[in-house]
Amino acid sequence: MAGRRFTLSLGCPDALGIVARLSGFLAGAGAWIVEAAYHADPDTGWFFTRQTVTAESIRMDLDEFRARFAEIAATFGTEAEWSLHDSTERKRIVLLVSKEGHCLHDLLGRAATGELPAEVCAVIGNHRDLDPVARAHGVPFQHVPFPSDPAGKAEAFEAMRELVDAHSPDAVVLARFMQVLPPELCEHWKHRAINIHHSFLPSFVGARPYHQAHERGVKIIGATCHYVTAELDAGPIIEQDVVRIDHSYTIADMVRQGRDIEKIVLSRGLRWHLEGRVQVHGRKTVIFS
Amino acid sequence: MAGRRFTLSLGCPDALGIVARLSGFLAGAGAWIVEAAYHADPDTGWFFTRQTVTAESIRMDLDEFRARFAEIAATFGTEAEWSLHDSTERKRIVLLVSKEGHCLHDLLGRAATGELPAEVCAVIGNHRDLDPVARAHGVPFQHVPFPSDPAGKAEAFEAMRELVDAHSPDAVVLARFMQVLPPELCEHWKHRAINIHHSFLPSFVGARPYHQAHERGVKIIGATCHYVTAELDAGPIIEQDVVRIDHSYTIADMVRQGRDIEKIVLSRGLRWHLEGRVQVHGRKTVIFS
Amino acid sequence: MAGRRFTLSLGCPDALGIVARLSGFLAGAGAWIVEAAYHADPDTGWFFTRQTVTAESIRMDLDEFRARFAEIAATFGTEAEWSLHDSTERKRIVLLVSKEGHCLHDLLGRAATGELPAEVCAVIGNHRDLDPVARAHGVPFQHVPFPSDPAGKAEAFEAMRELVDAHSPDAVVLARFMQVLPPELCEHWKHRAINIHHSFLPSFVGARPYHQAHERGVKIIGATCHYVTAELDAGPIIEQDVVRIDHSYTIADMVRQGRDIEKIVLSRGLRWHLEGRVQVHGRKTVIFS
Amino acid sequence: MAGRRFTLSLGCPDALGIVARLSGFLAGAGAWIVEAAYHADPDTGWFFTRQTVTAESIRMDLDEFRARFAEIAATFGTEAEWSLHDSTERKRIVLLVSKEGHCLHDLLGRAATGELPAEVCAVIGNHRDLDPVARAHGVPFQHVPFPSDPAGKAEAFEAMRELVDAHSPDAVVLARFMQVLPPELCEHWKHRAINIHHSFLPSFVGARPYHQAHERGVKIIGATCHYVTAELDAGPIIEQDVVRIDHSYTIADMVRQGRDIEKIVLSRGLRWHLEGRVQVHGRKTVIFS
Repeated sequence: MAGRRFTLSLGCPDALGIVARLSGFLAGAGAWIVEAAYHADPDTGWFFTRQTVTAESIRMDLDEFRARFAEIAATFGTEAEWSLHDSTERKRIVLLVSKEGHCLHDLLGRAATGELPAEVCAVIGNHRDLDPVARAHGVPFQHVPFPSDPAGKAEAFEAMRELVDAHSPDAVVLARFMQVLPPELCEHWKHRAINIHHSFLPSFVGARPYHQAHERGVKIIGATCHYVTAELDAGPIIEQDVVRIDHSYTIADMVRQGRDIEKIVLSRGLRWHLEGRVQVHGRKTVIFS
Repeated sequence: MAGRRFTLSLGCPDALGIVARLSGFLAGAGAWIVEAAYHADPDTGWFFTRQTVTAESIRMDLDEFRARFAEIAATFGTEAEWSLHDSTERKRIVLLVSKEGHCLHDLLGRAATGELPAEVCAVIGNHRDLDPVARAHGVPFQHVPFPSDPAGKAEAFEAMRELVDAHSPDAVVLARFMQVLPPELCEHWKHRAINIHHSFLPSFVGARPYHQAHERGVKIIGATCHYVTAELDAGPIIEQDVVRIDHSYTIADMVRQGRDIEKIVLSRGLRWHLEGRVQVHGRKTVIFS
Repeated sequence: MAGRRFTLSLGCPDALGIVARLSGFLAGAGAWIVEAAYHADPDTGWFFTRQTVTAESIRMDLDEFRARFAEIAATFGTEAEWSLHDSTERKRIVLLVSKEGHCLHDLLGRAATGELPAEVCAVIGNHRDLDPVARAHGVPFQHVPFPSDPAGKAEAFEAMRELVDAHSPDAVVLARFMQVLPPELCEHWKHRAINIHHSFLPSFVGARPYHQAHERGVKIIGATCHYVTAELDAGPIIEQDVVRIDHSYTIADMVRQGRDIEKIVLSRGLRWHLEGRVQVHGRKTVIFS
Repeated sequence: MAGRRFTLSLGCPDALGIVARLSGFLAGAGAWIVEAAYHADPDTGWFFTRQTVTAESIRMDLDEFRARFAEIAATFGTEAEWSLHDSTERKRIVLLVSKEGHCLHDLLGRAATGELPAEVCAVIGNHRDLDPVARAHGVPFQHVPFPSDPAGKAEAFEAMRELVDAHSPDAVVLARFMQVLPPELCEHWKHRAINIHHSFLPSFVGARPYHQAHERGVKIIGATCHYVTAELDAGPIIEQDVVRIDHSYTIADMVRQGRDIEKIVLSRGLRWHLEGRVQVHGRKTVIFS
């Protein structure tokens, strides 16, 4: 509905005058800012910003704009990380699934209604159960069986990696994919592999979190969307949400209630990632939502 | 996962010993209670209960059990309303839609994963836009165009009524169906027609509630699931939920954020209705969730 | 505002006909039930109920009613636990505090406005900082300094125990009291000592939970009200609540935001405890709120 | 805990280069920015910003800094509104109360623990009930009785106005003050008089909102903190929050549950106001929280 927009993201060591240099550059380029957010972290001395400008307001083409922004960014130190996103470039995602279909249904529904700003290139499952769901939405389903022996599993991950990488996706979404990624894949898809964990982390890491929550007698359950890292369920958290339960909830009730939270938290975190609203620094995230 | 269960619901004028008579009857029948809830409303002097028992524990068949319960219920006054639901009888629903697909995607996804305890018999739309969504889920779609002239509209409602009634549904769900039901249809589907309104009622009754909310500058928006009555958006409320927004939300942002709440509130209210957890008294509901 | 009421609580092994026997007894006594709640736990095979009746409706005095209820309760097994509470008996509480005053201010404010159904008999602090707060509310403050050596600490706990027990309190509230109770005191005040922990347990057990939460980068923080047991922060949870934060929150911001949740969660859990709405079974609670 | 800080707020018609000019000025002054927030409203074409800098980083005194900022602000149009706040200047507030004490207890408790960044200069009541509460906190209480006749009431408001204005307060807080301010007082204390309304506005405007909510059968209740304007309960909303209820809640239960929300919403809105985080434009607010 809005016209073409460019979004600049920058993270660098905090210093005097960063905003002045950036905004001076943008004003010089005639850029009309429609969204701007800043954060300076006093603990790490790091500065973060995200700014969206209308493409039509800029007196140069994207390549020149990018080159000029790169020059500015270079003055903020060698550690500075930046990106420039064009709203007319469509993002691409691949979904990894197992047998549980609620997150798949949800993401495909959001993609179909245009809410999720991305093309779902493929759904890859270690079981065939969700093949019909993908096909009903016109998305190719690829089956990669996971044997239980380590060698076979390693081969399966290698096969999956090739299938995924063929799409050059902006996000690899573990939509209730029940396998633990090997460390080299975590590194390979660093800050692109996004998982939904069905607990309010760091509570109930690992398997069967609803069973753990039931056992502990908590009064609220939750879900956590995070980047995948080699340490299980310990990657940078993008989004969390919770829902109230009570003593009458069986594990089945918790599973059902939790699904709604999982779907919302995953879709919200994924959308922010795709819109360049997430900046990772160390094991934490800055979210310009 | 659970075995066969019978659920008794009763609403009647409050009196001494109702629970004793009911529970005496159940104990006499050998009924093992797995869920029980009671509510006495001091304002209206009305008593409500819902009790679920395992079928296998009862020393009589369903017909006899129903007949015996009817005898007990009759002693609670002529106004007493009761029902007896068998968990092996599958409920039936019909969905009315227009162009917005998020609630339809959501309900069909929930039906497909078995979460919604009902068969979706048909989707009826006043536009053809959502035909492919229904068909992808293997549900018949029926198109009833709504002309803008009163006579044509009345005919369309009559046609829709016939299509709906052919399925004898337990619920007629207005899943973002944008037409106002005529009073006689509200009466005909009384306590069966369920609407999702995209505001936190009684705020922002009527058309374009997100626009109204944006205009007023509220900091939280919501959605309301309610039974349809002749007075617009004033029927008994089944469920509501809200989500926080801030000054940066455009109407489009509110629409997107609101969708998640609409889906959850509608599916929750509908499930409660189908599970016999909702009792209506006057313009209010008792929810044994 | 309401008249005199008796509240019966019962926990026992689940069996056929418990409700029938209980409600038969109540109907026979002419008891008018104004609140009733039941819960059967399929995992532990335990049955819980709480029922409130109007005193004026009962055709016997409290002692006889208690004796008759005891007879019924005895038929539910030797493990059965029951209590009978008279709404005209005022509950008594003692508050243990340290230097942080927000929970003390809150509880004394609630007691002053009549919301908390209890008399605050004493405030006991290991520091003198909150003496003026207690005195301003007309509540005696007692100072028990806690030396850092084990022997001195043990003596201090012994002194505190005597001061507390002199009031025969229905609840001993650790209102941000920063000392860990020794196991024998946990046992002595079992199911009466109530703590507020400033995290969403089981996340961030132990010291400085807000620092832990800040380090982990969570997007929501919480507070937990629980019974004190020998295992630190692992007692039965009475109530929890949460509040959203974001990357811009310093630890000081989290502390301030968390205080509001701590106050609400503690006061809610304490009120439920005082109204006999909490039943403990194993390490979990049933809350008839 | 932090050092001395200056906070600049600006609202003006949006234009190209505002941020560049502002940040250029700040960089030139050597100002180290610790907080910065921007908002451009596409509907009204208005631009808002709030920036906090450390005082020690600035190479000029406050008066010169203010003068220089005023020069910049003047270039943003005659409608531009700006302010410059020094964190070492203590804010002043006056509380208006009636008989209900929970908000008064809460605000005085927050002031006592240092959470509320303001001095409570006086508590003014139209009844004497809360005199002891104010005095216990060492705050003067002034009684202004309100007769029921219009002339007497007008005199009472005039007397109250003089008492309030004698303190030159930054905020006049209607802490459950049950009188409707006359239009001229609304105008006189424009954007300084802050009210807490015990409903989720715009639902349940006016008297007895909990009764209205009970009557309507809503499933969630709320509270709203807003600036007072001549139109009842229609002023710019600063903050809202909600809490879930169910069919079992009596009006008394709703009143009790609602109090917690009222206290939090009022104290949060008031703190934001005092910290210069609220900018009013038309009938809406921008909150840089």
